Amino acid sequence: MNEEKHILSILVDNEPGVLSRIAGLFSGRGYNIESLCVAETLEPKISRITMVTKADSIAIEQIKKQLHKLINTIKVIELTGQDFVQREMVLVKVTAKPENRAEILRIVDIFRCKVVDVGKEHYTIEVTGDEGKINALLSLLRPIGIKEIAKTGIIALNREPK
Amino acid sequence: MNEEKHILSILVDNEPGVLSRIAGLFSGRGYNIESLCVAETLEPKISRITMVTKADSIAIEQIKKQLHKLINTIKVIELTGQDFVQREMVLVKVTAKPENRAEILRIVDIFRCKVVDVGKEHYTIEVTGDEGKINALLSLLRPIGIKEIAKTGIIALNREPK
Repeated sequence: MNEEKHILSILVDNEPGVLSRIAGLFSGRGYNIESLCVAETLEPKISRITMVTKADSIAIEQIKKQLHKLINTIKVIELTGQDFVQREMVLVKVTAKPENRAEILRIVDIFRCKVVDVGKEHYTIEVTGDEGKINALLSLLRPIGIKEIAKTGIIALNREPK
Repeated sequence: MNEEKHILSILVDNEPGVLSRIAGLFSGRGYNIESLCVAETLEPKISRITMVTKADSIAIEQIKKQLHKLINTIKVIELTGQDFVQREMVLVKVTAKPENRAEILRIVDIFRCKVVDVGKEHYTIEVTGDEGKINALLSLLRPIGIKEIAKTGIIALNREPK
């Protein structure tokens, strides 16, 4: 059985212990979580967890059943296979030597990024997009010199049926 | 002792079980995690966890000590009290009745958001910024009708010393 990427969007009670139990469901079966975002929804008592994991389809069905059994789980939505919008955001701190600045700003412009901090030796760039766009940007900035990055991981919402 | 918001940036081995153990450290002490992002760094074997939690300063020092003791923890950086860039991203699916569309697009323009999906009855908007900007946007869109949101939670990087 092939392991595929699955995106799960899980609405849960915003309470201590919920994230640890949900993450434990995956690690207990030896599945790694590739990325995960958790934050409040419009209703502060409810949080949304968006999670990307690699698993075969039998394992993912079992995990979804286990998720439903947790009392703090309100809803489990699998986005994979549906039509959805996905985005992630990355902050990239890039070495900005005087001779490279024009090139960095050209890349920022082409990728519609924002420069969110400027120092003597670094620029910090904010970029949003799908995995492909972000990997393309990082591969262009890498030879110039990336000092560090912080990535959100993927968030996603269903598209409305047309 | 007053509970304050703390932002921790934690570099960890990208392995099953690490997130569950770290989240468990907080819930074991009854502290809720307000938001959390985890994703790969440039080095695929290392993930960065950015976490926002409310705790008093004694508790946060104890938690940091416990984090350091975990064998999969590489580095713990507390950003609170330092000079740093913080950003979060939100996808907002807003009800777009014909009579509200011009107003929604005006708001999108003022807040420098992007419309990332258009349906018959909804627009999906992508916005990045700090908490203040995002709350201001949501409070403007709320009376128009927000169907659902997905938030990344905060990511952050140190500013370079000037």
